Amino acid sequence: MAVNKKVLRTCKNTVLKGGLLAQGADVVRKKMIPYQWKALNDQLPDVEPSHAIENFRIAAGEKTGEYHGMVFQDSDVAKWLEAVAYSLSTHPDPALEAQADEVIDLVARAQQPDGYLNTYYTIVDPDNRWTNLAENHELYCAGHFIEAAVAYYEATGKDKLLQVVKRFVDHIDSVFGPEEHKKKGYPGHQEIELALVRLYRVTKDERHLKLAQFFVEARGQQPHYFDQEAQARGLDKFLHWGLFAHEYSQAHLPIGEQTTAEGHSVRALYFFSGVADLAQELGDETLFKACETLWDNIVNRRMYITGGIGSQSYGEGFTLDYDLPSDLAYTETCAAIALIFFGQRMLELDPNRKYADVMERALYNGVISGMSLEGDRFFYVNPLEVHPEVCRKRHDHNHVKPTRQGWFTCACCPPNLARLLTSIHHYLYSQDDHSLYVNFFAESEVECTVGESQVKLIQHTNYPWDGSIEMKLSLAEASGFKLHVRIPAWCRAPQVRVNGEPVDAAAHLVKGYLVLDRTWRDGDRVEVDLPMPVERVRAHHKVRETAGRIALQRGPVVYCLEEVDNGPDLTALVLAEDPQFELEEEAELQVPAIIANAYREESPGEGLYTVEEPRRVPVKIKAVPYFSWDNRKPGEMLVWIRA
Amino acid sequence: MAVNKKVLRTCKNTVLKGGLLAQGADVVRKKMIPYQWKALNDQLPDVEPSHAIENFRIAAGEKTGEYHGMVFQDSDVAKWLEAVAYSLSTHPDPALEAQADEVIDLVARAQQPDGYLNTYYTIVDPDNRWTNLAENHELYCAGHFIEAAVAYYEATGKDKLLQVVKRFVDHIDSVFGPEEHKKKGYPGHQEIELALVRLYRVTKDERHLKLAQFFVEARGQQPHYFDQEAQARGLDKFLHWGLFAHEYSQAHLPIGEQTTAEGHSVRALYFFSGVADLAQELGDETLFKACETLWDNIVNRRMYITGGIGSQSYGEGFTLDYDLPSDLAYTETCAAIALIFFGQRMLELDPNRKYADVMERALYNGVISGMSLEGDRFFYVNPLEVHPEVCRKRHDHNHVKPTRQGWFTCACCPPNLARLLTSIHHYLYSQDDHSLYVNFFAESEVECTVGESQVKLIQHTNYPWDGSIEMKLSLAEASGFKLHVRIPAWCRAPQVRVNGEPVDAAAHLVKGYLVLDRTWRDGDRVEVDLPMPVERVRAHHKVRETAGRIALQRGPVVYCLEEVDNGPDLTALVLAEDPQFELEEEAELQVPAIIANAYREESPGEGLYTVEEPRRVPVKIKAVPYFSWDNRKPGEMLVWIRA
Repeated sequence: MAVNKKVLRTCKNTVLKGGLLAQGADVVRKKMIPYQWKALNDQLPDVEPSHAIENFRIAAGEKTGEYHGMVFQDSDVAKWLEAVAYSLSTHPDPALEAQADEVIDLVARAQQPDGYLNTYYTIVDPDNRWTNLAENHELYCAGHFIEAAVAYYEATGKDKLLQVVKRFVDHIDSVFGPEEHKKKGYPGHQEIELALVRLYRVTKDERHLKLAQFFVEARGQQPHYFDQEAQARGLDKFLHWGLFAHEYSQAHLPIGEQTTAEGHSVRALYFFSGVADLAQELGDETLFKACETLWDNIVNRRMYITGGIGSQSYGEGFTLDYDLPSDLAYTETCAAIALIFFGQRMLELDPNRKYADVMERALYNGVISGMSLEGDRFFYVNPLEVHPEVCRKRHDHNHVKPTRQGWFTCACCPPNLARLLTSIHHYLYSQDDHSLYVNFFAESEVECTVGESQVKLIQHTNYPWDGSIEMKLSLAEASGFKLHVRIPAWCRAPQVRVNGEPVDAAAHLVKGYLVLDRTWRDGDRVEVDLPMPVERVRAHHKVRETAGRIALQRGPVVYCLEEVDNGPDLTALVLAEDPQFELEEEAELQVPAIIANAYREESPGEGLYTVEEPRRVPVKIKAVPYFSWDNRKPGEMLVWIRA
Repeated sequence: MAVNKKVLRTCKNTVLKGGLLAQGADVVRKKMIPYQWKALNDQLPDVEPSHAIENFRIAAGEKTGEYHGMVFQDSDVAKWLEAVAYSLSTHPDPALEAQADEVIDLVARAQQPDGYLNTYYTIVDPDNRWTNLAENHELYCAGHFIEAAVAYYEATGKDKLLQVVKRFVDHIDSVFGPEEHKKKGYPGHQEIELALVRLYRVTKDERHLKLAQFFVEARGQQPHYFDQEAQARGLDKFLHWGLFAHEYSQAHLPIGEQTTAEGHSVRALYFFSGVADLAQELGDETLFKACETLWDNIVNRRMYITGGIGSQSYGEGFTLDYDLPSDLAYTETCAAIALIFFGQRMLELDPNRKYADVMERALYNGVISGMSLEGDRFFYVNPLEVHPEVCRKRHDHNHVKPTRQGWFTCACCPPNLARLLTSIHHYLYSQDDHSLYVNFFAESEVECTVGESQVKLIQHTNYPWDGSIEMKLSLAEASGFKLHVRIPAWCRAPQVRVNGEPVDAAAHLVKGYLVLDRTWRDGDRVEVDLPMPVERVRAHHKVRETAGRIALQRGPVVYCLEEVDNGPDLTALVLAEDPQFELEEEAELQVPAIIANAYREESPGEGLYTVEEPRRVPVKIKAVPYFSWDNRKPGEMLVWIRA
């Protein structure tokens, strides 16, 4: 593959007009961003103070006091700014922009004369910058500020934060690099790699790309930098997470030698995203292939049906192939988001639905489950089976909260959700010089230049609740280009019509995209119908936890059972062989619920063990979209239903 | 219930003549006791030194050096002595007795002038005896020495250790008690309660019984002693195990108010055993009822099919009703043994098979699984599903060893197995003045006095591999008494003949015991046939982990699948509706294996999730007794099979 030639670019001039994703973005804009602002400013009752803004005031010398929060508390501010930037780009809001400008001014004042920017080290340990990259997140926070700066610049045209991060990167570049006198280190938590590529795309400054390349290539080299810096601090070696060693931060091997996704899942996916960015900018097929191998390992061996990744709490990470326990899952919201980040980059390099399908799986399930429908309660961990009393009494379930929480001491997930959902319109369409790609379905409009032509495409749909999609083209004059429309792999019988004429979808499918190559005229209409029967999905036979069970999925949406609808003891429910699925509007959640025939097993007596068969009582079960659970009454939840 | 009247007593004059239990006792005598001797003396290669004997030498002032081992390391010596006592009582061995006498002499020399005996405090912290009962096991170790002393006295007639522990108890009695000037404390780890009753039965010294009663009654009273002693050490309060508070050591409530088994399962069962002993000696029906409530809670809500108890590693304890995960089980060998101890005491108070059935379940499954067939490798944790790679990579499985270990830093289980199996003949028969009870089946002989008569009963059987049992009575003259024979609840169609004449078993059943009330004559023959088809056992519908699964059980023996017989991915195997069970001798393990029809599910492709049904490949599966697993090649193991 000649990576460079096939690269797609995002169609940024896209407007979401309605539907579930627009609702999600609206909730973020109206509820979550103001809510997070209060969190960052310690104004939420009953929630541990964040101190994030206060740390900047202290670092800027404008307040006295002690640093509080995680060592990466700064990144919460950066992610809030990034989300605000996306929000302003679609919904201008002078008051919010003024608030963001003030924060940016504060951040600028907290920057040190040499460009360094990190409130933890500035306040707590100014003499020991860059001495514990493995654990202390300076480069991670830098990465988030770079992303925020680029987003804010693109949204508002204001470059104050961009200048701040450029100066910071100049400083970082003076410290790290392949040159003899520089440190050979790289971050314990990746993020700066993808951020530097993003910065490079705005600045075109080759140093920014080269620094990203350095961080990617230095990682996993021997002698191991994390051991060296630990020794410089007087330790024997880096105190690894016991079971993981350097796998924890994907620093066990150079990227090209990694074939399975190991360790902390957010670190892993941010890293792979940065590597994919680098593959694109360098046209480096080897890097692309490494990414593809890791992608395939994740999605074919280590991903939950919800798009969640990270099978254990310890190390917040991957474990081994097919190890996907439903109740003990870690499945951090950030990790599912990071899977979307990685998928998006892979899709740019290789327009294959295998990336977009997984992004969609994550988006409609394990990502938006992270937020309540009201936008003010959050899951950090998104398991596929919850029994509240088990979470309270079993220490190994300590990480699983049976209901969403107001905020977190480690508050990475809510701001990550905010920046994803406010920029979600950027994922819908992409293009190269001769093609327009429809990657995701939502009520929306996009304007772009394909070849010589100005193209406007208007998409009407109620996706993901309905698979009927109508796309109208608006063109000043007729134009020949390819329209690529993703046909999701979950759809068994897509129907396509162009201006009312049926098109043989199968015959036009390339890597899962329907390719319509023709001269398009103003008013042309493409109708895609993706029938959405309720499907019974099975996991691979090597997944122990799901043996003998099915998950209900309709379109891209995975369903679950809740106690509020089905009573307790959800594992006593067995789907009937002929479930006779019906849809029914769930009034409170405003989503379609699935009604099915099932039976409830009831043991004949009180004893634990018996040779008698259980009674089977016919019941109707009701399943609701997984992402919408825990928005009514607390209780049990179950994705994988006995069949 | 008038507890006192119905009390049964053990028929100690019993000889095991053959069969599985005799083999177990033999292995302990020939392999395990010498192996443990080496362990206690730090003579095992590749095993962390125990230092237990060395600690006594140092405490006796005969060596210099530091204390090493757990704070309760002394108890390993006591349990070894107790096992040796039982072994000597059935198999005199002058060399072993001399070894034991030497240890007893050493223990006596380590006793302090005031009677105190504990090498940890004597060596490490002599000024702070009895200041941390919650954590530091002084009374626990005392209890084990009392048990050893009584056993050794009964086996050999030698009372040196008995005198040692009587002096120690005098000292304890001077420290603890209801009197104004004494401490109101009680042990963090129970054991001394049952030991003091045992001592009382030999000494008839009421002070010994009263001290036991004090420890039972003080427990769980407010203000809480563990908080008080912690405050005396300068802490705010006792630093509880986070999730448990005082439940961890069953000190959250007075015994009479406890209705569910909570906390550390060995502590709980030793405690309940002591309470049952006290109920017997005091004729206290309230205490008996408290024990029965707790027994019922355990066996009907919180016990694995193997008789294992303790559902989580954290706190080594109980969690909540029906929470019985197969792979995360703690199911410590000691806890299953303790369930037998508790059951034995309840059976003495109430001759009901509900106690003996559970004891048998534990014995043939979750207890003897703790030891390899060779007697030199041990499981501390006895889970019902093992996937070796999961144990290595998942931190929440850290407590699960996929193969038996040579020894343990906390080496409580192997010596406990040793003392149980060397005394297992004591469990077979019990009696009151008018009845002889056959509780368990084994090739054996018992002699006892029932009423006025000297009775000898010879039992021939190959139980648990065959349910055919023949009992011959040998009497000097005809005698009227009741012979009670337990008919296990697992047996659906028992056949009974007396001198060849069929007896209607159902008509003679009282609390699960067949009661044969007649004038017995020399040479009378009772034949009991307990047909042992392979049974498919189901767990209660509220047990999440076993939903849709069955366990194979034949007689009292629970079976499991091993990778060595069935290949990997045991959860992909599904038992056929008509399994056509057959038995086949497993040559290497020398046990009957079960062969059954099943099929193996194979997913149609490489992907994790699919709507396609898996292929079903017919296979024969082979199940072996659970206790015998991991005696060939390491690999997966599974008790609960899909059905």
